[in-house]
Amino acid sequence: MDMEKLVSLCKRRGFIFPSSEIYGGLNGFWDYGPLGVELKRNIKEAWWRDNVTARDDMVGLDCSIIMNPKVWEASGHVGGFSDPMVDCKATQGRYRADQMYVFTYADPRDPNRTVLLAGLGSNPEEAAEGLDRKAAKMLKIKPAEVPAPSSVTPYLDIPDDQRDRVVGPQTDEPGTLTPPRAFNLMFKTYVGALESASNIAYLRPETAQGIFANFKNVCDTTRLKIPFGIAQIGKSFRNEINPRNFTFRSREFEQMEIEFFCHPDEAATWYRYWRDARFAWYVRHGLRSDRLRLRDHDPAELAFYSTATADIEYAFPFGVSELEGIAHRGDYDLTQHQKFSGKDLSYFDDETKQRFVPHVIEPSAGADRATLAFLCEAYHEDEVGGEARTVLKFHPRLAPIKAAVLPLVKKDGMPEMAAKIYRELKTHYNVFYDEKGAIGRRYRRQDEVGTPFCLTIDGQSLQDGTVTIRDRDDCRQWRVPSANIVGVLASLMAGEPVRGEPAAASAPTEAEG
Amino acid sequence: MDMEKLVSLCKRRGFIFPSSEIYGGLNGFWDYGPLGVELKRNIKEAWWRDNVTARDDMVGLDCSIIMNPKVWEASGHVGGFSDPMVDCKATQGRYRADQMYVFTYADPRDPNRTVLLAGLGSNPEEAAEGLDRKAAKMLKIKPAEVPAPSSVTPYLDIPDDQRDRVVGPQTDEPGTLTPPRAFNLMFKTYVGALESASNIAYLRPETAQGIFANFKNVCDTTRLKIPFGIAQIGKSFRNEINPRNFTFRSREFEQMEIEFFCHPDEAATWYRYWRDARFAWYVRHGLRSDRLRLRDHDPAELAFYSTATADIEYAFPFGVSELEGIAHRGDYDLTQHQKFSGKDLSYFDDETKQRFVPHVIEPSAGADRATLAFLCEAYHEDEVGGEARTVLKFHPRLAPIKAAVLPLVKKDGMPEMAAKIYRELKTHYNVFYDEKGAIGRRYRRQDEVGTPFCLTIDGQSLQDGTVTIRDRDDCRQWRVPSANIVGVLASLMAGEPVRGEPAAASAPTEAEG
Repeated sequence: MDMEKLVSLCKRRGFIFPSSEIYGGLNGFWDYGPLGVELKRNIKEAWWRDNVTARDDMVGLDCSIIMNPKVWEASGHVGGFSDPMVDCKATQGRYRADQMYVFTYADPRDPNRTVLLAGLGSNPEEAAEGLDRKAAKMLKIKPAEVPAPSSVTPYLDIPDDQRDRVVGPQTDEPGTLTPPRAFNLMFKTYVGALESASNIAYLRPETAQGIFANFKNVCDTTRLKIPFGIAQIGKSFRNEINPRNFTFRSREFEQMEIEFFCHPDEAATWYRYWRDARFAWYVRHGLRSDRLRLRDHDPAELAFYSTATADIEYAFPFGVSELEGIAHRGDYDLTQHQKFSGKDLSYFDDETKQRFVPHVIEPSAGADRATLAFLCEAYHEDEVGGEARTVLKFHPRLAPIKAAVLPLVKKDGMPEMAAKIYRELKTHYNVFYDEKGAIGRRYRRQDEVGTPFCLTIDGQSLQDGTVTIRDRDDCRQWRVPSANIVGVLASLMAGEPVRGEPAAASAPTEAEG
Repeated sequence: MDMEKLVSLCKRRGFIFPSSEIYGGLNGFWDYGPLGVELKRNIKEAWWRDNVTARDDMVGLDCSIIMNPKVWEASGHVGGFSDPMVDCKATQGRYRADQMYVFTYADPRDPNRTVLLAGLGSNPEEAAEGLDRKAAKMLKIKPAEVPAPSSVTPYLDIPDDQRDRVVGPQTDEPGTLTPPRAFNLMFKTYVGALESASNIAYLRPETAQGIFANFKNVCDTTRLKIPFGIAQIGKSFRNEINPRNFTFRSREFEQMEIEFFCHPDEAATWYRYWRDARFAWYVRHGLRSDRLRLRDHDPAELAFYSTATADIEYAFPFGVSELEGIAHRGDYDLTQHQKFSGKDLSYFDDETKQRFVPHVIEPSAGADRATLAFLCEAYHEDEVGGEARTVLKFHPRLAPIKAAVLPLVKKDGMPEMAAKIYRELKTHYNVFYDEKGAIGRRYRRQDEVGTPFCLTIDGQSLQDGTVTIRDRDDCRQWRVPSANIVGVLASLMAGEPVRGEPAAASAPTEAEG
């Protein structure tokens, strides 16, 4: 799949727009349009239902985005949530130091003379792009004469006394890059009228800490017994130096996080439970291809407090990237908040008479990333009746529009019958009515936004009360009575077999488009 | 109703907690606990269904909180969204200048000698509190000798040359208050690594402007024809100098806003439509008392671009305050964005071949304020079976828990039958299972969180398959077959009559609590 085609479809059909686009946008911020908002709402609703309201061992929470800044001291974000950054004094450019590589090119006419060129990329191959041409220019030789670089060094490993020789990515002058410095990714603001250190507050970089900060409140006000979880959906913010890949790495994003609290002895079991349950959730909602992957972290990758972490990854067109992380965080977070708040966050087990700080399993998902993965997986191009079509094969539960109601022609009472069916369905489902244009073109318009079913009212409908149902994915059509149309759509949505007759040759055909 | 009692119930039962409470909270920020999050979700869901998905003339949108700052220049927020603020140089206190009144006290022994004392309050009566004692102290006379103040002047009207004589609210020294200065209520942050003027961004103070900024995108990507509306639910932020009244005036809050675009000639009609429709929505969801009011603004109150505005108000325990405003905004916003963005935001009517800038009706509601009003209205104290009870009489659609399933005793197969019914209901509704404690006490616990129905499984249930249903509001009990329990609860929720027999004397009684 081609990322540009998807971005263009998202814009054209109102799924996702650049934020404040009429003002030239704002790098790293996105808006969800009429169809996008419904898609994302359905994803969040499915997550909430499956993980919160359908379970006995989970409750929800909705914390504020701005919290007491001590939360972020306890969590380690004030001290450590940073990326290494480099400035270019010549161009005012800013770069992630860990995404910059320095290539050494020797002058073929004088091997003692070298130039050090910095390139940007998440790996040396990416970073090398275009540098040969630049080397030719700097060494004043022909491109064909440029030798392979004699060494490649991450910028972070360049010794201090060599830094002055490095040529920055957007300049031809050496020595304009600063040493790397830690740049905290939290957006900062001031609460109250005074812009003083005592009034600093942060936009939360994750929803998780709001859950830990409320652990005691939830224990005190519910009668939940461990093991139990607390779930939250909400916006988080990270001042990324280099936002990229459409909505994947943006500066404002929405998370769906669970902190599941359990006895230390059961934590390993619950970790495996959540890792597998969360993976299965994506599969169940349509990520069926081998683009979805589960990757257990190597011990070397683990945070010091974690004994196990897994990533649910998706092979996006721009690379394999994390959709959700499931981390065994031990008692790290509660212990930190205990230390910084001075409050006792231990749990007393009435049955065993044991007091302990619970261990925590954290399945942390991105709502925007999930939306993007469902969009990528759904995107198909195929041919129907000799015509190319673009179709989004969403799971019915996630599709923004569940069904389109279409009178075959705009006369003979068909619009009236269609409107009646539309009204009936509309009180239960997000359905769409369309009477404009050839029926084939109307099918195509619904295919492109992922509507799983089209109900068409034709001449036979007026005689026998049946309507045709067209399946988005295989374009199969069959007739069902319209009497219990809400029940029919409910069954279709649930993937249950719906009795009916194959639509006859006289039924609306794709070719009419 | 007593506000303190409600705040305490909200805390005790997990509706609303102070944000980051273990760190001493943060003034003006609140968290929704397990029951609060479900209540607020139900309110937002009801609003979205009724105003967006159930309508043909409305679509949704979900914009970013941080937008291009030019949006706020166009909207007037950068220039004008401010409160007048006063600093006290002696105490570092900060006050709203429009909530400060200056009282002149004359010395009874020497009428030419006066002291000017500043008091805080939203009206002179409030501001006067405690000032007599202070006057006695300052004039070195007995409290009984203090005369009535000879004048009361809003601080904003104090002439420059008199300001040095005013004694601030928290000091005994005159001349420590600064002149009023405009304090912008938008939270400011920096996007990108540099804290420079060109990187300033704001947390949106309202969701409305995101809709105007996307008007063209929505026109271009849907086939909507005017009149139509765009709706959005989302967080907004205002750096209030003086947050107060529980969640009513907080610094982070959630809005539910509609911008309805129409032809200028039809705007007055649509204004009345939305004003009345929105008022009816609150009534329909339970705000039935005369505490709900509709107030049309006087011409003098209107913003210069508005020809009509109405407030839907609620008489909270702390005073009558705005729940939602419905404003006829004319073409002000689109015209401003047209001017600042240089983009054509006019609309072309295919049928009339007319091009115009649409007029806008804006019903702007607060989700937290609605939640608070529903909580206040629901709160009742009464007596059942000789025992005092607290009950939240939520509309079933809004109640966090729809039904509790209770085995009368924890033996004889009742828990098993109850668990089966609970499982069946749980796939459709947020229901609660409780087998602990006397049945009367369990009823009370559900009353206190607003669960409309309790289903009790007793001895007779095991014999004939019926269960008792107890109505939260009138405590009436009757028996229904458990066979189609999902359908029964659906009917109860919809307020439809459910056939059944009055529960016999042997049924679980309130008195058992």
